[in-house]
Amino acid sequence: MTEATRIVLASRPSGAPNAENFRTQRVELPDAAEGDVTVRVLYLSLDPYMRGRMSDAKSYAEPVPIGGVMEGETVAEVLKSRHSDFAPGDIVRGRIGWCSHAVIGGDKLRLVETHGAPVSAALGVLGMPGFTAWSGLKFIGKPQPGETVAVAAASGPVGSMVGQLAKLAGARPVGIAGGPEKCAFVKDELGFDAVLDHRSPSLSSDLQTACPKGIDVYFENVGGHVWDAILPLLNPYGRVPVCGLVAHYNGAGAGNEDRLPTTMGAILRRSLTVRGFIQTEFAAEHFATFLAEVGPRVASGEVRYREDIVEGIENAPEAFIGMLTGKNFGKLVVKVSDL
Amino acid sequence: MTEATRIVLASRPSGAPNAENFRTQRVELPDAAEGDVTVRVLYLSLDPYMRGRMSDAKSYAEPVPIGGVMEGETVAEVLKSRHSDFAPGDIVRGRIGWCSHAVIGGDKLRLVETHGAPVSAALGVLGMPGFTAWSGLKFIGKPQPGETVAVAAASGPVGSMVGQLAKLAGARPVGIAGGPEKCAFVKDELGFDAVLDHRSPSLSSDLQTACPKGIDVYFENVGGHVWDAILPLLNPYGRVPVCGLVAHYNGAGAGNEDRLPTTMGAILRRSLTVRGFIQTEFAAEHFATFLAEVGPRVASGEVRYREDIVEGIENAPEAFIGMLTGKNFGKLVVKVSDL
Repeated sequence: MTEATRIVLASRPSGAPNAENFRTQRVELPDAAEGDVTVRVLYLSLDPYMRGRMSDAKSYAEPVPIGGVMEGETVAEVLKSRHSDFAPGDIVRGRIGWCSHAVIGGDKLRLVETHGAPVSAALGVLGMPGFTAWSGLKFIGKPQPGETVAVAAASGPVGSMVGQLAKLAGARPVGIAGGPEKCAFVKDELGFDAVLDHRSPSLSSDLQTACPKGIDVYFENVGGHVWDAILPLLNPYGRVPVCGLVAHYNGAGAGNEDRLPTTMGAILRRSLTVRGFIQTEFAAEHFATFLAEVGPRVASGEVRYREDIVEGIENAPEAFIGMLTGKNFGKLVVKVSDL
Repeated sequence: MTEATRIVLASRPSGAPNAENFRTQRVELPDAAEGDVTVRVLYLSLDPYMRGRMSDAKSYAEPVPIGGVMEGETVAEVLKSRHSDFAPGDIVRGRIGWCSHAVIGGDKLRLVETHGAPVSAALGVLGMPGFTAWSGLKFIGKPQPGETVAVAAASGPVGSMVGQLAKLAGARPVGIAGGPEKCAFVKDELGFDAVLDHRSPSLSSDLQTACPKGIDVYFENVGGHVWDAILPLLNPYGRVPVCGLVAHYNGAGAGNEDRLPTTMGAILRRSLTVRGFIQTEFAAEHFATFLAEVGPRVASGEVRYREDIVEGIENAPEAFIGMLTGKNFGKLVVKVSDL
């Protein structure tokens, strides 16, 4: 018998999640049926969208039920396989959830391909966040040479990729990040043309100075007050891929007055495109193209990334709670066990 | 010498315009230079966007200066021509403005082509409003057979065309209009599948009943509280062409709380596309195609339209002020002189 440690949803949060919303369980794994694979999780990805799954508000995905294992993308090693595509020792990725071991249908797993980068990259720069950046730019943002591309959470897994891909496309990436350490990383390590601290009281005028020709693409992944600083600078025919609103996830992000007429008025007067998307819209058709295009650039170091690695599945809730307030620095990953 | 009556902007309105914001002038026309055409205006179009031109807020177009002639699209007869493309008696359209006669560069005029419909149609169903509907649907809304297309101001020149074009595309048009008379016209004369009165206190639930499969395309030309009723019904991958926000033009349309997070959240979770546009974006390339496609259908009566004709240029301000509160019924046109 294999034992698994799992984190389940104990209760739904109102506002910011806290430790009591989660519960750690030890369970025995069931027997593997034909087609199943028994895996040992190596890395668990923690991502802002998981806050949405903790709520039962209508969304694009079903919520995690109370008592259910928290959902999440993982990289795992195959221990035993009753599926013809997998053998013990294979490294796979899949939505196994917040757990140390699992028995899962092999049809829900994919072999990890990282083109020589560490396997944890399959959860970040070469996984869902990296693909979110790539597909949002390719199909919605469409940066042209010389254009200005702004992105918030610029040191994070999506934002860092947005800026680097924009630069590769000949555009001028301007990042927004929280605090001097993250800002220095965005400018010096990732090579953005400019970076701004969203905690600065002069964010709006800083942004105006950093974007003398306005903003052509704003990759929206935070919402909140950053949007108010971006909106006046958006150029005619500007594009706004919306992949996240982390500032709103805990019910915040609202102003004291109705900001909708200003936003709709700008959309009208400047012929803006605001387009929400979830990367799954494009993944089936384009993920392999993304991996072939970006994977070698990650392996060679041309495209850079940063991980914030937390040790031990039992520390996932605390790390997740901290992420929602911007405590992590780089893609947040839980190291569940050694390779 | 030819005398002209003109309406100029006397002062900028704060909130709803009133009669004092306009002034009527009698002026003598200047001599026509080489390339100029002297015209007698037959019809002047009154359109909601003109409210925007009365303000000096940053917009896609320059405001009308204080003392300047109010801008507007007209149909006119050529009296004298010093331009090789035009001869006396030609019927032309152009942005001549709120005036009875003018001397204008021939390069700013186009011969009117209505495929047999009355020439005033060049200001409505076969002019800018009709083309706004056609281009917004063709390039942004993209209605598919079986989809639901909702539009407000459905008895107006843009809305009535949106619904009829949606129907021709095999979609199901649902209109929103103000009052029983307009609603009856939309359902019985224009052939919409359903129509709702935006003054109804049960608009949200009426709309839900009328759209059992949700809304795939919402053609936004009003804003305000109609948007709040539409938003919850928009289906995943819904498209929202935004061509006007008439409810906001006088500074209204705001709620008591911040409605932006709800809208942005819906855009994200349902992968919505919200895209502002001005018909001029598409006109140079596609206006002739539109006219060839829709003109014969208007002339044959397959595509229907309604005009609200006001007699006399001196009555333009009052008619315009009334239009902003929905007093007109059909495309508002000022008949300036007889053909």
